Amino acid sequence: MNKDFNYSGLKLGIIGGGQLGKIMSQKAKKMGFNVTILDPTPNCPAAQVSDRQIIGGFYDKEKLTQIVNESDVTTFELEHIDTSVLKELYDAGHNIHPSPYVMELIQNKYEQKKLLDEKGIPVPAYKDVKNNDDLASFGFPVIQKAKLGGYDGKGVQMLKTPQDIQNCIKAESFIEELVDIDKELAIIVARNIEGEIKCYPVVEMLFDERVNICDSVMAPARVSKHIEQKAIDVSIDSIKALDGVGIFGVELFLTKKGEVLVNEIAPRPHNSGHYTVEACATSQFEQIIRAVTNLPLGSTKLISPAVMVNLLGEEGYEGEPFIEGIHEALDIPELSFHFYGKSVTKPFRKMGHITVLDDDINKALEKANKAKNILKIKGSKKV
Amino acid sequence: MNKDFNYSGLKLGIIGGGQLGKIMSQKAKKMGFNVTILDPTPNCPAAQVSDRQIIGGFYDKEKLTQIVNESDVTTFELEHIDTSVLKELYDAGHNIHPSPYVMELIQNKYEQKKLLDEKGIPVPAYKDVKNNDDLASFGFPVIQKAKLGGYDGKGVQMLKTPQDIQNCIKAESFIEELVDIDKELAIIVARNIEGEIKCYPVVEMLFDERVNICDSVMAPARVSKHIEQKAIDVSIDSIKALDGVGIFGVELFLTKKGEVLVNEIAPRPHNSGHYTVEACATSQFEQIIRAVTNLPLGSTKLISPAVMVNLLGEEGYEGEPFIEGIHEALDIPELSFHFYGKSVTKPFRKMGHITVLDDDINKALEKANKAKNILKIKGSKKV
Repeated sequence: MNKDFNYSGLKLGIIGGGQLGKIMSQKAKKMGFNVTILDPTPNCPAAQVSDRQIIGGFYDKEKLTQIVNESDVTTFELEHIDTSVLKELYDAGHNIHPSPYVMELIQNKYEQKKLLDEKGIPVPAYKDVKNNDDLASFGFPVIQKAKLGGYDGKGVQMLKTPQDIQNCIKAESFIEELVDIDKELAIIVARNIEGEIKCYPVVEMLFDERVNICDSVMAPARVSKHIEQKAIDVSIDSIKALDGVGIFGVELFLTKKGEVLVNEIAPRPHNSGHYTVEACATSQFEQIIRAVTNLPLGSTKLISPAVMVNLLGEEGYEGEPFIEGIHEALDIPELSFHFYGKSVTKPFRKMGHITVLDDDINKALEKANKAKNILKIKGSKKV
Repeated sequence: MNKDFNYSGLKLGIIGGGQLGKIMSQKAKKMGFNVTILDPTPNCPAAQVSDRQIIGGFYDKEKLTQIVNESDVTTFELEHIDTSVLKELYDAGHNIHPSPYVMELIQNKYEQKKLLDEKGIPVPAYKDVKNNDDLASFGFPVIQKAKLGGYDGKGVQMLKTPQDIQNCIKAESFIEELVDIDKELAIIVARNIEGEIKCYPVVEMLFDERVNICDSVMAPARVSKHIEQKAIDVSIDSIKALDGVGIFGVELFLTKKGEVLVNEIAPRPHNSGHYTVEACATSQFEQIIRAVTNLPLGSTKLISPAVMVNLLGEEGYEGEPFIEGIHEALDIPELSFHFYGKSVTKPFRKMGHITVLDDDINKALEKANKAKNILKIKGSKKV
């Protein structure tokens, strides 16, 4: 897309139609672009707010070819896709960002870690697993991760004792030292086609330990200037190492010794960056649109401290979602309510989120926790 | 809608599918609602971001009945509609906000002014026009306004001398004294079903004098605390007088003597409130959704000073729009670009807008003016 391109009605393809694709599409539509979603589920969240949906899976070569052919630029809301056909299309000159080569590298968590390690970026100690002896080589407890296909706590497990080896992940995997974590941090990094890089603030991720899913995010993180700078530096270095274009969610471990290690990188808008919609000058969702369409990146300035809380489907419910407590929750000042429009709820499924602003981050946390206790996503069926 | 209502998938109808309906729909979709747009133009801006469009005009009784019947709540982005069938539906118990009775009153600018005047709200001197003598009764120059159907500078004209009477508006009209204006101010006021009222900050409206269309808006207005409070008081009194539910744009004159007079009221999101998307805790577009669905109103806090500039179609162009200067403009920090997705441009047509944030309102204005000089909306045909 050169500088004479007419951006009015630019055709954008988004592969994946969940909540990330939905908000990306809303920001693309804000700028007047024409958006097509590729997703196997008819009327998926992103399709509801876009011009058009192509119904097809992420490994359907024909439909992947169609969306790329019919778009000026194609991007992603998820990394679990067939890259082989996309590499051919990319090599033939189609605009696909991040490139399918970067996607392929990131898909394999072991290769991703190896690349970062080779580039001198601090990561937890890790080892390829070829047999059960490899699993035991760091002692116990140890973290085992599937190389491919993991997300939201899936594909990751802790082996506490040698006996746990019998229940280990059977797919291709690697092990990682159990890091003595002080906090889990994250940074959203944007990089556009011209190589311009912008970092969002360092945030703190809090997890629901029952299922290892991100529960809340505090922006900014409660860390020293020194740690903040370290986190920014390793995140920028990581994205330079990957040579990617788009938005990258860099998950970090702050160890009790004060080291900052890269845990993993998502090549797309990330749950830890949802707060940017309300709290930053340019949201991560608009930023990816700017990055992949060869527009200048927007300011990543934090306009207000914020706390984001995921609304997960309540345990014990399935079927058509029912929102409990919406009146009481929306009465909390400076609270923004997002509900994704998924047709069915399941236990721990990401159904929506809230972002709460306050000049005082501790007050924002207090208000967010109050809302979290009030809002429940139940369903039409008990399970 | 009582408190047990399941807001997941709530069916919202919006009458009118331009830029106001578009952003309203995006905010409703953020909350997971199901949105239907009624508009005569297929693929109008709002339809592009909504679940469904009913193609029909605003005086089409059958289609108006359909959207109300098929929605849990129906609201508006414009006031020029047939209220007779809506009144029947409202009386039969359908949720329509603001009520068609309020819409009908506001449609007639003379009746609107008379009501405010009778309730003791300060307005410019005005007089019903029955004949040419009435036109001359305040002397010259004087402002003549059509009672019905005016918007964006249409239906309003200045009669400078008695000779101008021959070119006066021929429809039913009234005259208004030519106020000695210091500034034109505006306030967005929200009122929900329970009667809760919230005011947004007082803003300053600047006009393109060639066509009397709002050109830019500064938030907050550069006025004293005393004037600010006066403006808030008359705006709240006006909305109480109307007894309306929804969002109201109150246009005000600040006279050189320091009086604050109500010019007119729009019963819907208003151009002077576009800045709230980026600059306030809750935008006017989310606020109307909350108001009409019986949810608590959100905070109207100004998070950052802001300047909004309308992007009007350049004189001399029509047809498919072409955005000139987008790269240079989007490089300006804290600038948010909105483009509505209208299929054709016309001279002075509202095609998009930008909002620029800055801690310093004067810097925001400087950046906005820079962008305004760069961004041009041209078209495929010269006219």
